[in-house]
Amino acid sequence: MKQNCAGKQSLIFARPPRIISGAAVVGDVEGVGPLGGDFDMILMDDTWGEETWEKAERKMFEDAIKRAVAKADLKNSDIDCLLGGDLLNQIVTANFAARELMMPFIGLYGACSTMAQSLMLAGIMIDGGFANLVACASSSHFSTAERQYRNPLEMGGQTAPVAQRTVTGAGCSLVADAGYAGQAELLHIYIAGATIGKVVDFGITDTSNMGAAMAPAAADTLITHLNDTGKQITDYDVVVTGDLGSFGSDMLRELCRERGVNINGRHADCGVLIYDAKKQNVDCGGSGCGCSAAVMNGHLLKKMDAGGYDRMLFIATGALMSPTTGLQGDTIPGIAHAVSLERR
Amino acid sequence: MKQNCAGKQSLIFARPPRIISGAAVVGDVEGVGPLGGDFDMILMDDTWGEETWEKAERKMFEDAIKRAVAKADLKNSDIDCLLGGDLLNQIVTANFAARELMMPFIGLYGACSTMAQSLMLAGIMIDGGFANLVACASSSHFSTAERQYRNPLEMGGQTAPVAQRTVTGAGCSLVADAGYAGQAELLHIYIAGATIGKVVDFGITDTSNMGAAMAPAAADTLITHLNDTGKQITDYDVVVTGDLGSFGSDMLRELCRERGVNINGRHADCGVLIYDAKKQNVDCGGSGCGCSAAVMNGHLLKKMDAGGYDRMLFIATGALMSPTTGLQGDTIPGIAHAVSLERR
Repeated sequence: MKQNCAGKQSLIFARPPRIISGAAVVGDVEGVGPLGGDFDMILMDDTWGEETWEKAERKMFEDAIKRAVAKADLKNSDIDCLLGGDLLNQIVTANFAARELMMPFIGLYGACSTMAQSLMLAGIMIDGGFANLVACASSSHFSTAERQYRNPLEMGGQTAPVAQRTVTGAGCSLVADAGYAGQAELLHIYIAGATIGKVVDFGITDTSNMGAAMAPAAADTLITHLNDTGKQITDYDVVVTGDLGSFGSDMLRELCRERGVNINGRHADCGVLIYDAKKQNVDCGGSGCGCSAAVMNGHLLKKMDAGGYDRMLFIATGALMSPTTGLQGDTIPGIAHAVSLERR
Repeated sequence: MKQNCAGKQSLIFARPPRIISGAAVVGDVEGVGPLGGDFDMILMDDTWGEETWEKAERKMFEDAIKRAVAKADLKNSDIDCLLGGDLLNQIVTANFAARELMMPFIGLYGACSTMAQSLMLAGIMIDGGFANLVACASSSHFSTAERQYRNPLEMGGQTAPVAQRTVTGAGCSLVADAGYAGQAELLHIYIAGATIGKVVDFGITDTSNMGAAMAPAAADTLITHLNDTGKQITDYDVVVTGDLGSFGSDMLRELCRERGVNINGRHADCGVLIYDAKKQNVDCGGSGCGCSAAVMNGHLLKKMDAGGYDRMLFIATGALMSPTTGLQGDTIPGIAHAVSLERR
């Protein structure tokens, strides 16, 4: 039997790896949102002095990693492996950042689930004895995503009420061995376990409604996690989803209720947290790999470390379509990976 | 210190996970090549009865996994995790196949290095006690790759002499715990170790010359592997690269020679093996995620299990650019991941 498993999809780390630092870089729109004060760097404009948005996103990805490494008083060469990905075709943001950082690199694609996917794999590598220090990073950029997935920004197209705004942001967590001895001010947050998601498809075809496409996957992973580990929802102070937005969050609560789990008052969504939906023109909130990456590494790790939460289940969700699959009549499958975080 | 590491980038598995089965599905051009007799399924045409090439590629990906699972007399539900990826934007081949197979799924993007990347991560998950049975899969398709990366096929464009043909193929390895007790006829090939690649960029900008873009990464990973583990090149019967083609293979041999390692007579490349370059119009040979996936799981595992090789270093290489990065003036970075295989 597997030593470190609970049920088919869930893992329990024998010596929970420790998140020692996190850093987040965001765009100007995110900077004026409710979490603005928590980010390490806020861009004045979304090109950040680069010739293209794609190069700006790459610079953000790199910068978030450098900041997380510097906070732990480490050098790039101390990092055993970089795990990361982004939304651009062929994850070129992560690939080119990995080139500059010269870290051993494993590229991931989990769409907006990438932040949780990378933390889960970092936990596996570290608890398994295959690495001491792993950097987990992800990013997205409003302007690179719009032109790749939707329409040229210059067209000035209207958005649907259920749409979400792709977050311009990048985040990095630095994960170390459980017994890591560093400065006292490092974070004391541990990855206790994880649940590997399955692809779930409820037949949504509206590419403006990613929240609805991803909510069923989040519900599936949450319920599976509870069943696999024998935990109750009340064992967590908060369940944080990645980027369901307000519509998808409502749907998640309803899907959980139907399956006998009440998450009301115990659920937060990074896509809802990052913007002030009443004052900012963001429809149902934020989305993108960078949404959960920036909110986790800018806001949530700080809040948790300060005692705001002792136990958090972080479920990042990804919509796994491409523009091509939409044109070829496919529905939008979703996936969600979960990591269980504890403050000690 | 890390328990299971050698040097910064290399891993040694304490109980080497076992590859118990492999399967490969290829297109018609690959089927008439020198390895045709080794593949489990050869398509009559490259749509395989589907409406689009993309859907045909997805069907191949699924089929390779189903065949590898069936060979081991297992069911899809026995598999703890599927690790895989492909070349299409947002790895939609792997995503949609994972939906049909209903396996817990971790999506990877390593371009044509994906087969080695997935075997390495399977080794980590299994030796770390986080899974018993992991399916590793990858694919590519000539027609989906041409229209995504190059020009519409209908244009009938000419290729450069250093170009390679994207292999229409999919392959899957099923990896189990070292002590897996199954039928006697299962493969007896073990993943002894791995080396995680770094991104290497020699400044190549010619998107027709992927071999030259990837060869420096292959050389870097090979030399690092030998340095990390203290092994000599003569400790391996063969070093098999993924898809350097004939031009990239020549370059790899030269780069190794410059660094004091002679791989002459001990190197094979899946991109060279899969076609008969004299009779088939394939320029420098095959490329694509499906190239190393099909050759490994169709040909190499069989040959190794039959005693053709006792020790193989499998180095799959990926070119990490996208059409967008090329248009924005970027060079083509490469990466290579290595897994060390032993017959026991």
